[in-house]
Amino acid sequence: MSYQAPLKDMLFVMNELAGLAEIHTLPGCEDATPDTAEAVLEENAKFCGAVVAPLNWPSDKEPSFWHDGQVTTSKGFKEAFKAYGEAGWQGVQHPTEFGGQGLPKLLATPCIEMLNSASISFALVALLSDGAIEALLTAGSDEQKAVYLENLVSGKWTGTMNLTEPQAGSDLAAVRTRAVPQDDGTYKVFGTKIFITYGEHDMAENIVHLVLARTPDAPAGVKGISLFIVPKFLVNADGSLGARNDAHCVSIEHKLGIKASPTAVLQFGDHGGAIGTLVGEENRGLEYMFIMMNAARFGVGLQGIGLAERAYQQAVAFAKDRVQSRDLAGSPGPVSIIHHPDVRRMLMSMRSQTEAARALAYVGAAISDVAHHHPEAEVRAESLATYEYLVPVIKGWATEMSQDVTRDGVQVHGGMGFIEETGAAQHYRDAKILTIYEGTTAIQANDLVGRKTVRDGGAVAKAIIAQVRATEAQLGELSGADFQAMQRHLAEGSAALEAVVEYVVANMKTDVKAVFAGSVPYLKLAGIVLGGWQMARAAVVAQQRLGEGSGDASFYKAKIATARFFADHILSQAPGLRATIIDGSAGVMALSEEQF
Amino acid sequence: MSYQAPLKDMLFVMNELAGLAEIHTLPGCEDATPDTAEAVLEENAKFCGAVVAPLNWPSDKEPSFWHDGQVTTSKGFKEAFKAYGEAGWQGVQHPTEFGGQGLPKLLATPCIEMLNSASISFALVALLSDGAIEALLTAGSDEQKAVYLENLVSGKWTGTMNLTEPQAGSDLAAVRTRAVPQDDGTYKVFGTKIFITYGEHDMAENIVHLVLARTPDAPAGVKGISLFIVPKFLVNADGSLGARNDAHCVSIEHKLGIKASPTAVLQFGDHGGAIGTLVGEENRGLEYMFIMMNAARFGVGLQGIGLAERAYQQAVAFAKDRVQSRDLAGSPGPVSIIHHPDVRRMLMSMRSQTEAARALAYVGAAISDVAHHHPEAEVRAESLATYEYLVPVIKGWATEMSQDVTRDGVQVHGGMGFIEETGAAQHYRDAKILTIYEGTTAIQANDLVGRKTVRDGGAVAKAIIAQVRATEAQLGELSGADFQAMQRHLAEGSAALEAVVEYVVANMKTDVKAVFAGSVPYLKLAGIVLGGWQMARAAVVAQQRLGEGSGDASFYKAKIATARFFADHILSQAPGLRATIIDGSAGVMALSEEQF
Repeated sequence: MSYQAPLKDMLFVMNELAGLAEIHTLPGCEDATPDTAEAVLEENAKFCGAVVAPLNWPSDKEPSFWHDGQVTTSKGFKEAFKAYGEAGWQGVQHPTEFGGQGLPKLLATPCIEMLNSASISFALVALLSDGAIEALLTAGSDEQKAVYLENLVSGKWTGTMNLTEPQAGSDLAAVRTRAVPQDDGTYKVFGTKIFITYGEHDMAENIVHLVLARTPDAPAGVKGISLFIVPKFLVNADGSLGARNDAHCVSIEHKLGIKASPTAVLQFGDHGGAIGTLVGEENRGLEYMFIMMNAARFGVGLQGIGLAERAYQQAVAFAKDRVQSRDLAGSPGPVSIIHHPDVRRMLMSMRSQTEAARALAYVGAAISDVAHHHPEAEVRAESLATYEYLVPVIKGWATEMSQDVTRDGVQVHGGMGFIEETGAAQHYRDAKILTIYEGTTAIQANDLVGRKTVRDGGAVAKAIIAQVRATEAQLGELSGADFQAMQRHLAEGSAALEAVVEYVVANMKTDVKAVFAGSVPYLKLAGIVLGGWQMARAAVVAQQRLGEGSGDASFYKAKIATARFFADHILSQAPGLRATIIDGSAGVMALSEEQF
Repeated sequence: MSYQAPLKDMLFVMNELAGLAEIHTLPGCEDATPDTAEAVLEENAKFCGAVVAPLNWPSDKEPSFWHDGQVTTSKGFKEAFKAYGEAGWQGVQHPTEFGGQGLPKLLATPCIEMLNSASISFALVALLSDGAIEALLTAGSDEQKAVYLENLVSGKWTGTMNLTEPQAGSDLAAVRTRAVPQDDGTYKVFGTKIFITYGEHDMAENIVHLVLARTPDAPAGVKGISLFIVPKFLVNADGSLGARNDAHCVSIEHKLGIKASPTAVLQFGDHGGAIGTLVGEENRGLEYMFIMMNAARFGVGLQGIGLAERAYQQAVAFAKDRVQSRDLAGSPGPVSIIHHPDVRRMLMSMRSQTEAARALAYVGAAISDVAHHHPEAEVRAESLATYEYLVPVIKGWATEMSQDVTRDGVQVHGGMGFIEETGAAQHYRDAKILTIYEGTTAIQANDLVGRKTVRDGGAVAKAIIAQVRATEAQLGELSGADFQAMQRHLAEGSAALEAVVEYVVANMKTDVKAVFAGSVPYLKLAGIVLGGWQMARAAVVAQQRLGEGSGDASFYKAKIATARFFADHILSQAPGLRATIIDGSAGVMALSEEQF
């Protein structure tokens, strides 16, 4: 159950598909040379493999536990997080001004993937801190930045996101937590928040809760929500820790997976009021929270990819080791099960989907870097729109994919996979949260349909599809059955995606329920077409390198075979999804509530 | 988390699709009138709902445990199994001669589904006993039948299947357990068996282990395996229990799911040899075991259906209860989430797949009854061949489907689904074993390809496809968009299935690995086409009843809408699977072992 970071594939994607060489020419990204990137990834791989990965299974067996308001995290977590912070990993993508390394998102992205491969439960504390840092960088006052950012970036403190309340799952309009202004400019916060990841723990000196709440005169609904910083310990003027704030963990959840990550119920203000300070302006809390959410959603997509990679590696190791039954083509005795076609099919399915999602996510990260660093405003705006289209696809598709992959991972192990000691089952359990938190797949799909497709009349989607078609043309110029098959499936895929985008735009006003009945299938379609596009791009590059006779021929051949598999086995689902979305709404809403 | 048996759908399927009226005219099935069937189902539903269903979640929380060779099962299991036996439920499908009710398989099938909806872990003890009974009925001596059958049929004793050994998962050729003949005609058995469901427990007075082992002069491989009865307690001539046999449970597994069902490691012969008696002839053990296996495989398919039904009911209850966000079409306040299109889509997907698999399984049960009871040998033979084609499809597809459905079941619950107390996660965990035990999905697919398709040149498959086409013609005679859509998707599905059958038959000799690379997709294709066929048949009947103005119009309309959904959302995957199977083998085997 060890983990070896797939550095070769990561670097291939960064250099050949995501354009690291161009990213590092952007203002502010100059440090990210390909050589630096390689060195950073190698160091991160060592850390994740040696320090974090060994904690994953033991921490599932002996999860975090709550006693009398305190949460004790799994053995080794505290020390590992200290080492993580001290080595500077929390700061990879954050500004040097606050102690970070100031490296582009494209470089932070593989680091985050690796941390999640090592342990999703562990990685969550860092992911939440990243979100808090982003929100404060964007909307915090200079004073707030000065008080909180350095300690968050160094990993001395950690951050949380407090959205959900018992009566309001994904529906933020129903938030009831109150924030009452005090004479000194602070607020007293009262309310209950649930499902708070790392809402309480023993891995940092302080916890910076970012809390959605309503001020007394706030309008109803989502337009009346403000964002507050409510630290676990108040911070004195000299930066030292002051009194314990009135924010207490009353319990943690007993969950299907990510058991080492404490999921807290937090009670604010039961003893007079939790002291908080307003972030940015009143009633703009949701907007700021979305900054965290978008960063976190992309991060959860990486969790899916990291988990899929870990499950794949474990399945491959088992399949090479486990000897059972003869080879179908004949063999003197039993062979390792990796020789059996259906085991092979599952491994290729796991591998190809993981690689496709990785490529799409890293390309997305590079586009985000362009959106933030390019000198021309127009290019920034265009890139931002593209990135924002990709975020729900990466989050939604990569996490759903991780459930398919971890399921196959158990299946490859046969009966042993069902035994917890093997570790494959943990991935299957852990994966199930990924399609739920930071917005369920349906919420990602709503975002994809509403804000990302209909709002601009499908313009961004079509611009992306035009790029897919350019890759199809490149495939068409290459000879051989592999490229022909990829070209055919990709062309069917892009045609399906275009038809669906047009359907969504055309029907949103007249039949909103029909459109949303197909929203998750649309998200899946976008995922497999755009993932298939990246695999096709990878195959084109691989073929070029093979022609040049440069680099690792075995790697490039494997990339082409994996891209071919993806086209035949995954991308081939596109026309069926098109039919489902465009013709399939009738049955979705046909039954009355009583008929269920 | 209560369970209400879907009696209306069960009776509809039995009467309208599986032809109960004809089954009960078969010799030996006369007792199974539609009225009797309804009465039996109602009683069984009461028992499963009131006695067994409430045990499911508590028994997951406090599973069976092992101490010093003894296994204590979860609270309530012992009493419930006593009541199960006393009420005659173990004997529903077994001969009256041994105390059973002698009812056809078509009638036993919904009873087994209900028991599995109530608790998969509990149902397993009954399922294993059914298998032992079948094997002894077929291959046991008169003396063995006299000693064991009545007590198995009454539920006083239970049965087990001992196949797997540590070094030999699914590969029975590698079985090493030894059986040494003794002067008195018995054998002494020595060896270790793993993954033995209910291999030790406290719910019955005796446990009848059926054990695969090799006699000293047996040929190597699967042709040298014999079947033995090795009871936990030896049985005296007067039927009373004698000495404790040398078959001991040394541990039970810590598993992902079905935690209440003890999965034992059994050690035979560590204290001088476990005494066993040979079943049937030497070296024919595998053949007899396949009798149990085939019955058990059909039963595991029912487990998938029962579990899917339970998860569906729980998701529907939650979706009706949970209020969150406004209706897309506008509403004054938040509405229950069953109003949201994607929740609806998931519920319809769960419902339609469960109903389709149920219909296919019940129709299969009726065909099995014809195969065993029809007066004409030719009809029996034909029906047996059809049934045997369906068994791997029902086992493989219904269990894979149950993993899709239980995953959606968690997803409908959102964050609450990930909390174990909600109960939805248990179904997700439980489902994962179903595609593994009694032969993994790949092993079902091997059976479907080899013994069930290639051996007869695809004749049985094509005869079934001809029946599908007859239903397509019926759909074509009905007007309306629902029937047109069903007809189109079913026609594409049957064309895909036929093309794949021809591909499999044509390529088996020349490219065996390519054929097996597509074996699981072929099984899935067969499942959705034959399931879609049954849904289409159901819709045709429903339309007819609506035209007649007879029966429950709301039920029939829901059936048509559900069939339409299945066609648009599930059956629509058929052409993609066809492409995957026929063109998609290239990528499966392309990588060398080192490239993984």
